[in-house]
Amino acid sequence: MKQFEEKVGSVLVANIDIHEVTVLDKGYVRYVDHLGSDERVVEAARVSYKAPSKGEQQDKKLLEYLYTNRHTSPFEQCSITFNIKMPIFVMRQFVRHRTFRLNEVSGRYTEFEPEFYVPSVWRSQSTDNKQGSEDSDELDHEDLTSLTNLACTYAYNHYKALLNAGAAREMARIVLPVSYYTEIYVNCDLHNLLHFLELRTHSHAQKEIRDYAEAMAEVAQKYFPWTMDVFNKNRR
Amino acid sequence: MKQFEEKVGSVLVANIDIHEVTVLDKGYVRYVDHLGSDERVVEAARVSYKAPSKGEQQDKKLLEYLYTNRHTSPFEQCSITFNIKMPIFVMRQFVRHRTFRLNEVSGRYTEFEPEFYVPSVWRSQSTDNKQGSEDSDELDHEDLTSLTNLACTYAYNHYKALLNAGAAREMARIVLPVSYYTEIYVNCDLHNLLHFLELRTHSHAQKEIRDYAEAMAEVAQKYFPWTMDVFNKNRR
Amino acid sequence: MKQFEEKVGSVLVANIDIHEVTVLDKGYVRYVDHLGSDERVVEAARVSYKAPSKGEQQDKKLLEYLYTNRHTSPFEQCSITFNIKMPIFVMRQFVRHRTFRLNEVSGRYTEFEPEFYVPSVWRSQSTDNKQGSEDSDELDHEDLTSLTNLACTYAYNHYKALLNAGAAREMARIVLPVSYYTEIYVNCDLHNLLHFLELRTHSHAQKEIRDYAEAMAEVAQKYFPWTMDVFNKNRR
Amino acid sequence: MKQFEEKVGSVLVANIDIHEVTVLDKGYVRYVDHLGSDERVVEAARVSYKAPSKGEQQDKKLLEYLYTNRHTSPFEQCSITFNIKMPIFVMRQFVRHRTFRLNEVSGRYTEFEPEFYVPSVWRSQSTDNKQGSEDSDELDHEDLTSLTNLACTYAYNHYKALLNAGAAREMARIVLPVSYYTEIYVNCDLHNLLHFLELRTHSHAQKEIRDYAEAMAEVAQKYFPWTMDVFNKNRR
Repeated sequence: MKQFEEKVGSVLVANIDIHEVTVLDKGYVRYVDHLGSDERVVEAARVSYKAPSKGEQQDKKLLEYLYTNRHTSPFEQCSITFNIKMPIFVMRQFVRHRTFRLNEVSGRYTEFEPEFYVPSVWRSQSTDNKQGSEDSDELDHEDLTSLTNLACTYAYNHYKALLNAGAAREMARIVLPVSYYTEIYVNCDLHNLLHFLELRTHSHAQKEIRDYAEAMAEVAQKYFPWTMDVFNKNRR
Repeated sequence: MKQFEEKVGSVLVANIDIHEVTVLDKGYVRYVDHLGSDERVVEAARVSYKAPSKGEQQDKKLLEYLYTNRHTSPFEQCSITFNIKMPIFVMRQFVRHRTFRLNEVSGRYTEFEPEFYVPSVWRSQSTDNKQGSEDSDELDHEDLTSLTNLACTYAYNHYKALLNAGAAREMARIVLPVSYYTEIYVNCDLHNLLHFLELRTHSHAQKEIRDYAEAMAEVAQKYFPWTMDVFNKNRR
Repeated sequence: MKQFEEKVGSVLVANIDIHEVTVLDKGYVRYVDHLGSDERVVEAARVSYKAPSKGEQQDKKLLEYLYTNRHTSPFEQCSITFNIKMPIFVMRQFVRHRTFRLNEVSGRYTEFEPEFYVPSVWRSQSTDNKQGSEDSDELDHEDLTSLTNLACTYAYNHYKALLNAGAAREMARIVLPVSYYTEIYVNCDLHNLLHFLELRTHSHAQKEIRDYAEAMAEVAQKYFPWTMDVFNKNRR
Repeated sequence: MKQFEEKVGSVLVANIDIHEVTVLDKGYVRYVDHLGSDERVVEAARVSYKAPSKGEQQDKKLLEYLYTNRHTSPFEQCSITFNIKMPIFVMRQFVRHRTFRLNEVSGRYTEFEPEFYVPSVWRSQSTDNKQGSEDSDELDHEDLTSLTNLACTYAYNHYKALLNAGAAREMARIVLPVSYYTEIYVNCDLHNLLHFLELRTHSHAQKEIRDYAEAMAEVAQKYFPWTMDVFNKNRR
């Protein structure tokens, strides 16, 4: 995890560390802010029985009990905000998680930069999973990468040509490939983050979104260490 | 509205009319099924006061009262299911409506057909709205269309080349442009459909999603005529 | 399951069977309407891979695969509407399921009838579960029941006295106990119904809501038999 | 707004002010924590057009534009957590706002204290609104209050009698009236808080929940002053 001193925008950060995890060739997951803590989860649960904390060991046990017995509401009292840069085709999977609250850069307002995800390592169609992929010794990775570079460059040139010929940004962008990078702010509550991580770190999920999920888990580990330990130990 | 006798899949339709509204150059909105009726809305509201219906005129008045006073829950008792074919960039706006329940064709399972949205009429950047577009006399529509055709053909050829070189479908597809057509099943409850229609038939919405919204409104008119009349009369 | 010919309201039912399952002493779960079918679930899933059905046996297998692998979105394409009469304290647990869409009788509009849940069989505090209860040989059931009858009668008399003294309905009702019966219309999509059933038929759930959950499962069995079979076989 | 130095639980607060607004006779709204700020709303919106802030005056204008044009997603990036003590019948209205994330004290775990809402000022049935109430000169407030006190005392005595006779807490509580106080932790995002405030500060809402809504607005004013100013100026 890269740490550096920098402002995300003008107001978001004061004297706290900022974390960035690099994902794919040009993407990232950055920490922006969070609400609550592992102790908040426990406390939200304790409101149910109005009992005070009996110390850290008991709190950790309670937290594990909550997770493994699917008492999910206390985890919803916490949330974390990320700033993520990811390709459109990953974003299309990401956005299916409907409890996420997000804002995305708009191709109607802004002209896109020529930033595309261009894999250097390729996978072939899986032989035992109709939707999946697998590593392969028989692929010519360099050739596939250079084909992709060509396709992206060509698409971007067309995008610029349409803009230059007077087309509105919202129309010109339709020729851009789903490999281009978009950027979001996203706030996830802790329960739904864990649910996302469970589904999207699963071996059936596409490798690229798995990489983003792992990066999000890495960032969350710092702010919710007990919860992430329990998750890693018990993920269903 | 085109009407025809055809099965949508193998089980969905029996002896009912099927409606299709054509949208853009290759897209459509098709009716699949619906739950409830205008009367159901009224009845769900009446459960609150346990009063029987006093006839159609009173029911219509009540329905208008509910809508204009934002008593939204009775409208949630009804829903409608569409089968929609739309370009990815429209889908990306569509999916932001988080109460919609949808299933989409997957580019991980299936190889895509070379079907792209290629506009024949273009718009230029709006001069008074930073995100919008406007009609223009100065655009060379034929030229823009042929540029777009070229871009799509080129992208599709690269997609096929990547597949032929052994890349998995989920990777090869990353070079496809956001103009390619995807297909969904979507179930919307009536309250959230009206909310969607309000936002997406608004002049600030992109023309292409407005066309889909209007088509959905046209289909809904047949199954919920009182509600759609009230909506059209009172849309905020 | 009781079957009878009766109208629920004026418009809901035509020539279909109506089902009612009696719950507790004065409550019920009634079927109102549903959208979709087991085949719809399968078809919604198939839209992902654009493959036609290969017959009922394959469809059932796919449905089980979807459920056990938590492909939940196809189940959201179906829904079922119930009319339920239940005590307030059960309703307070019920309403925590936020995807349910419901309308409830209002104590601000209508004067309540003296209908309360009065158990004839009682349970004592569980010895091994702080929140639960268990059967007991040492309880004087008749005595507990008659205490409860007294309490409810007394509360209802106060309610009427407050009304007679000129208090608004919305204020007078505050003395009514949480055992009084309320009535709702509720529409649940099939995925979230199964999730509810899993949590609320669990031995940790309060006996009274378990009874409602079992009644809802019994009604759903008729309209979604494959899904309910898969659920019963695989419930986590 | 009362300010005092006190811990809410054991871990929630460090060196920050705590706010409490008293509501009804024994209830309150307390501030627990919040995520984001007015500037975060603006920044989340600016991610769409990737433009830097042009100073406070412009930021405030943008915030008002967002609110009045229903660009709701930037407001969802912020949230606020309250600890609220309210009667059950208010809670039953509160919980209909399904985006709220809440934890509530459980009557299955804990024995309830004899704390009930007992109004000292009463309202009569509204003459022009079937569900509402209005001030009245003809009510004997003292008499109504003492009737209510009696009813609550009687109910509580029955609750204790059922417990003493061995009934489980989850069963004994059924005789308690909806005037008894419960306690929740609730986290609301800023968009949905404003939506709640709009509906529940409306003259059609019951007076008691209006009081809670006003108290929540008062607390929110301190942490999101620009947003609350815009809301108060423009509430629909």
